[in-house]
Amino acid sequence: MPGYTHLCIPGPTNVPERVRMAMNVAMQDMRAPDFPELTKPIFEKVQKVFRNTSGRVFLYPSSGTGAWEAAIQNTLSPGDKVLMSRFGQFSNLWADMAIRMGLDVDVIDCEWGEGVPVEKYAERLKADKTHDYKAVFATHNETATGVTSDIAGVRRALDDANHPALLMVDGVSSVGSIEFDQDAWGVDCAVSGSQKGFMLPAGLGILSVSKWALEAHKTAEFGRCFFSFEDQMKHNDNGYFPYTPATQILRGLDVSCDMLLDEGLENVWARHRHLASGVRAAVDAWGLKLCAKRPELWSDTVSAIVVPEDKDARDVISTAYSRYNTSLGTGLDKVMGKVFRIGHLGWLNEGMVMTALGVAEMAMIDAGFDVKPGSGTGAAVAHFTGAAGRAQTMAAE
Amino acid sequence: MPGYTHLCIPGPTNVPERVRMAMNVAMQDMRAPDFPELTKPIFEKVQKVFRNTSGRVFLYPSSGTGAWEAAIQNTLSPGDKVLMSRFGQFSNLWADMAIRMGLDVDVIDCEWGEGVPVEKYAERLKADKTHDYKAVFATHNETATGVTSDIAGVRRALDDANHPALLMVDGVSSVGSIEFDQDAWGVDCAVSGSQKGFMLPAGLGILSVSKWALEAHKTAEFGRCFFSFEDQMKHNDNGYFPYTPATQILRGLDVSCDMLLDEGLENVWARHRHLASGVRAAVDAWGLKLCAKRPELWSDTVSAIVVPEDKDARDVISTAYSRYNTSLGTGLDKVMGKVFRIGHLGWLNEGMVMTALGVAEMAMIDAGFDVKPGSGTGAAVAHFTGAAGRAQTMAAE
Amino acid sequence: MPGYTHLCIPGPTNVPERVRMAMNVAMQDMRAPDFPELTKPIFEKVQKVFRNTSGRVFLYPSSGTGAWEAAIQNTLSPGDKVLMSRFGQFSNLWADMAIRMGLDVDVIDCEWGEGVPVEKYAERLKADKTHDYKAVFATHNETATGVTSDIAGVRRALDDANHPALLMVDGVSSVGSIEFDQDAWGVDCAVSGSQKGFMLPAGLGILSVSKWALEAHKTAEFGRCFFSFEDQMKHNDNGYFPYTPATQILRGLDVSCDMLLDEGLENVWARHRHLASGVRAAVDAWGLKLCAKRPELWSDTVSAIVVPEDKDARDVISTAYSRYNTSLGTGLDKVMGKVFRIGHLGWLNEGMVMTALGVAEMAMIDAGFDVKPGSGTGAAVAHFTGAAGRAQTMAAE
Amino acid sequence: MPGYTHLCIPGPTNVPERVRMAMNVAMQDMRAPDFPELTKPIFEKVQKVFRNTSGRVFLYPSSGTGAWEAAIQNTLSPGDKVLMSRFGQFSNLWADMAIRMGLDVDVIDCEWGEGVPVEKYAERLKADKTHDYKAVFATHNETATGVTSDIAGVRRALDDANHPALLMVDGVSSVGSIEFDQDAWGVDCAVSGSQKGFMLPAGLGILSVSKWALEAHKTAEFGRCFFSFEDQMKHNDNGYFPYTPATQILRGLDVSCDMLLDEGLENVWARHRHLASGVRAAVDAWGLKLCAKRPELWSDTVSAIVVPEDKDARDVISTAYSRYNTSLGTGLDKVMGKVFRIGHLGWLNEGMVMTALGVAEMAMIDAGFDVKPGSGTGAAVAHFTGAAGRAQTMAAE
Repeated sequence: MPGYTHLCIPGPTNVPERVRMAMNVAMQDMRAPDFPELTKPIFEKVQKVFRNTSGRVFLYPSSGTGAWEAAIQNTLSPGDKVLMSRFGQFSNLWADMAIRMGLDVDVIDCEWGEGVPVEKYAERLKADKTHDYKAVFATHNETATGVTSDIAGVRRALDDANHPALLMVDGVSSVGSIEFDQDAWGVDCAVSGSQKGFMLPAGLGILSVSKWALEAHKTAEFGRCFFSFEDQMKHNDNGYFPYTPATQILRGLDVSCDMLLDEGLENVWARHRHLASGVRAAVDAWGLKLCAKRPELWSDTVSAIVVPEDKDARDVISTAYSRYNTSLGTGLDKVMGKVFRIGHLGWLNEGMVMTALGVAEMAMIDAGFDVKPGSGTGAAVAHFTGAAGRAQTMAAE
Repeated sequence: MPGYTHLCIPGPTNVPERVRMAMNVAMQDMRAPDFPELTKPIFEKVQKVFRNTSGRVFLYPSSGTGAWEAAIQNTLSPGDKVLMSRFGQFSNLWADMAIRMGLDVDVIDCEWGEGVPVEKYAERLKADKTHDYKAVFATHNETATGVTSDIAGVRRALDDANHPALLMVDGVSSVGSIEFDQDAWGVDCAVSGSQKGFMLPAGLGILSVSKWALEAHKTAEFGRCFFSFEDQMKHNDNGYFPYTPATQILRGLDVSCDMLLDEGLENVWARHRHLASGVRAAVDAWGLKLCAKRPELWSDTVSAIVVPEDKDARDVISTAYSRYNTSLGTGLDKVMGKVFRIGHLGWLNEGMVMTALGVAEMAMIDAGFDVKPGSGTGAAVAHFTGAAGRAQTMAAE
Repeated sequence: MPGYTHLCIPGPTNVPERVRMAMNVAMQDMRAPDFPELTKPIFEKVQKVFRNTSGRVFLYPSSGTGAWEAAIQNTLSPGDKVLMSRFGQFSNLWADMAIRMGLDVDVIDCEWGEGVPVEKYAERLKADKTHDYKAVFATHNETATGVTSDIAGVRRALDDANHPALLMVDGVSSVGSIEFDQDAWGVDCAVSGSQKGFMLPAGLGILSVSKWALEAHKTAEFGRCFFSFEDQMKHNDNGYFPYTPATQILRGLDVSCDMLLDEGLENVWARHRHLASGVRAAVDAWGLKLCAKRPELWSDTVSAIVVPEDKDARDVISTAYSRYNTSLGTGLDKVMGKVFRIGHLGWLNEGMVMTALGVAEMAMIDAGFDVKPGSGTGAAVAHFTGAAGRAQTMAAE
Repeated sequence: MPGYTHLCIPGPTNVPERVRMAMNVAMQDMRAPDFPELTKPIFEKVQKVFRNTSGRVFLYPSSGTGAWEAAIQNTLSPGDKVLMSRFGQFSNLWADMAIRMGLDVDVIDCEWGEGVPVEKYAERLKADKTHDYKAVFATHNETATGVTSDIAGVRRALDDANHPALLMVDGVSSVGSIEFDQDAWGVDCAVSGSQKGFMLPAGLGILSVSKWALEAHKTAEFGRCFFSFEDQMKHNDNGYFPYTPATQILRGLDVSCDMLLDEGLENVWARHRHLASGVRAAVDAWGLKLCAKRPELWSDTVSAIVVPEDKDARDVISTAYSRYNTSLGTGLDKVMGKVFRIGHLGWLNEGMVMTALGVAEMAMIDAGFDVKPGSGTGAAVAHFTGAAGRAQTMAAE
């Protein structure tokens, strides 16, 4: 099918040219004496992206799911009681994992479109005088519903309760794109992957841990080997890995971290806010709603757009793919057919957003939606243009 | 600057993934016994793209300008009288070359925005009873003004006058994108380059010649060596080249010809018509005019858009580049500042056009144009959507 | 440092040009409707490489170590008794993993340079009338010592004892390079990775399982999620994955399997035998010994070469790297300093072996070894040349 | 055919990884405002590689042959008398070009294997009191015979005769590899191409000219356009080109010049001397002779090796290619069948030379040559190894 395939999903995201060039490599010896010259700075740069100054990061050839598992295996023990919440496909899957791995999961179910129930967390933590909860889990950015939760709030709930539980955060679709501050928020295990804000191919699970997580690790009793912190640390400290690392992606990671840090994390976050606002302006102009219940939950990395009740979102997605060579994100599980998603994270600018919105607008019209040509695209253009207009819009953001 | 740099110029065009993959190669021996297995099919495929069944093609490591020169050097002699016309920067440059190389050029100057003056050609050819004109030159698609000329008409003028002059055609920005039929139109030298419809990096001049051009070559007296037909033919016949060829681009050309032929040339042309019409719908909705004087001159590969008299088109272009990371085509020479150009050829689809139009719309608004957000983009969306709408629009095309 | 860095280690191996071209890709949507068109044939091709017709394969974004863990987690339960043996670094590490994961490991320690102690296995299996052993582990090709073990023999031991234990085989550095026949040998879990015989970058753990392993899976009680068979099967059956797969490597895997199957597995094995014999001819001519104790243990994918007692193999390796830009394999753990290794597997031919041998010969001379210039390289040349010579040598192989 | 295809010809040479990565690019706009940030430093770096401080360089999408033609067209006029010599295929072809372009060529024919006849040049220049010779041509490194000529000597001959003729030098297979000093030698037009010492794909003709060549250009009367200095200068001065440049190769050139300059030109030359000496040691050990008549003519970039009278060199070449996947250089024209060539220039180190020598040794043995296994390879190993040995050999060089 002619023309580029447009990738407007919330990951994998578009790989920048510089990164792609850096990964077009011949293989190299992961035991070479100069290998640490490549790897050691990478660990440091990744920590900077997480804003983690006290702990360390682990880079596993795996995925975000692998890093979820690594976090649990390395810091907890079978039967440990933990507090979790479910409000979308990915928070759901992490809870499912915790249960299957043998944790005693106290799970709070919320409507999809809600975020982490910070107040309920606060209540339960206060009530837990015996500190039975060993960890509190929170999905920072629920990719399925386009909801960003208040991690700082979860930390406050822990602190207010003087509770020592670890704070485990899924930052797969937030780190490197929207505000994430591991130090300030006291996140003990922050999970991410290569194929979202890090702008790389899938294949790397990234786990950033605090010094308290490392402390907890010493008594954590899950069996582990592939994901074992101690094996990694023993080798990472010298710039090596306990088994053959995914060197090609590491080479890309080196460059993508440089790009994030050179742009400046605050600028990266502001850019995501700016582009996401353009998408939301279009959604509003189309007369549609986001799956996220309230503005303070709106995600700046992905928008899940609710279609009218008499429509099936899958028609939009399949039309976009088959007629316009464009991948939009599908609705997962409970919201299948009810939402389509536009990913707006990573290596992105206004022109790419115009593709996403233009195609979404065309696909909705093709699918019989009552959408006026130029309504959403025009709203985005209006949002993106003009010094005055921009200032005004930014304020409204 | 974050996000892809959008290339919305009329060449170099976007390189398809398959082509880019094919060119990511280690070097190879251009004298290897199996080298002809690569090259011989390429010659055949390129001929098919030109619809040239009687003659042959030459592939020079050079550019379209090189192929212009090759055409002249190999089929004409110093002092030969030729008929040319100027109505844009590229027709102008080819005439300038002809003059500098020592041809006796009878040049017809037309207003920029006009095309080849077929009727005037017809008159002069009829008047030339002694057949002094050795060749007639025509720029098929004037890239500077977005004008497509009537080459079949020029052929009719030659035939009506029973005139034996060679027909030399610049197809740099037309071949492989819009209708081009070397056999049917009796084109003797058809010039192209790698970086437009062939969807490759720049670096290859492509010249497709008829059997009459090969006949004329035998008595052509220009000094030549690098571009010499005879040197090329001697080696090409065996699948080799007289000097080291640009093998990397040849590898890409092999794939890009496959892509064009697999899509089907008529489909490729129809796609360009379809996408160009979307761009023209936007231009109309913006309240602007094309540089091309009449609908029958509208080019399906590039639109030169005239800005209001009180505006400078360079402001649009520089804003698009600096603020939206997008390259639009500048106005060249006489139309500098008066037009900006959108290239819509090569590896292109609706989503990419939406980027071009969205950015142009934003850049015009930023530059103070009286353009309504969503006007042009909306008109393109309207054009591109809906089975009914599409049929209707195609008819109007 | 000028010139290519020569990769003469037993993995990562050299990536073929075709594979590298195939991996130079933009990202794609792993939920796209046509994604299974890419993935489904890959599963089939990988099964062919393992010669596994009854079961299925799992492709994890991980490594060989990950696939080791996946095999254990998915087919066994904590506390299960298993039979293992240690005779090199990798058989050692797998045993270590099994112990740490909570298996009851009956481990037989052999001298490094020996292989799987098939006779001892036979004895213990015969003695195990109550079928306490749930699985028998065997490292097919011990990469650290260059030893290939007799897996068919282990299968015979199991069959002779009528023992139902699963047969778990580490084929990381054998599959796709030397004879491996999962069906014929009754291997239940065959572990491999992307960066050896599959000629890809590291980043993929490959696990090929028999129908009996899938049966055992139903009652296996290890906690698991990332490596879970059931999650994979549920999605793989439709051509998808339970989490974002490493699509870039899958694209490479598709091509590398084609290359192996097009060459023909028997031809691939014969090529490795042929090239390995050349290396061994050189070792013999240098007056050195292999770490592998007997000819029937010699590995055709890697040779661990024992240096004289008064020398340190690390001098050879560091000289090769710093002076000749060549990575040789180091001695691991017990044999550190005592051996250096030459990997001769994957995308390899005689010319590449000449680099490895030439550099090894130079590095040994530089390190003060009593090695005659041209002795080893000459022996390899003699081995590789001449129809007569070749027939003769092959017989001797 | 398995394993890398070894490229042991005198160009195209092996492309370094860094260069290949740099060329794996999306297209860009050659009229973008920041395009000069890429191009301007390239011109400066290329001049440094030529050691040209007074003049400038021209970068044509073409080849070395194109740069030959550019040199003639831009500095001479039809009918100009010039002095040339022929002693191999490339000096022959340049003379042929000069004749076909209409120069009055006074050509001195020498036996193939000789170099530029400096003394005869001196005689004729002294005898030319009226300064009829407008230019003197010299092939610095005759790629066909592996002969390096004394360009400084030609300059002395000119100076001794107080002769104002331009000095035109073919440095295609010397610049960037062996000593070349345009300033010191007073070279007016130095011709090169991308695919030799510049370690790039073919596709770029590189011409470095002195200020005197630029002066001569003002009165040079050849017709020209594609290769025209004035068109180039007008645009190059601002960082642009008169027509679409081969941007992809320019991106590679930027990196390859950095690599040459970072290594240091003297170090690059010494490395070529060192590696060439290893090849020559092998040739000597094989009992064969070079085509170059005397040691002072030996080229450090390519060796043309004469086979015994009863043998055909093409058997060696075809065996190397079909059996060992290795391209050796063929004998061209007069020496076809009599020599095979090993290129030893560009991105090269000892390990790569061992491949070339190992394969050549095997192919000769396969072809029935009386060559002892390990003779040539061993001689190279002896040459390349040992501090003492190295010092000794370097002295002998």
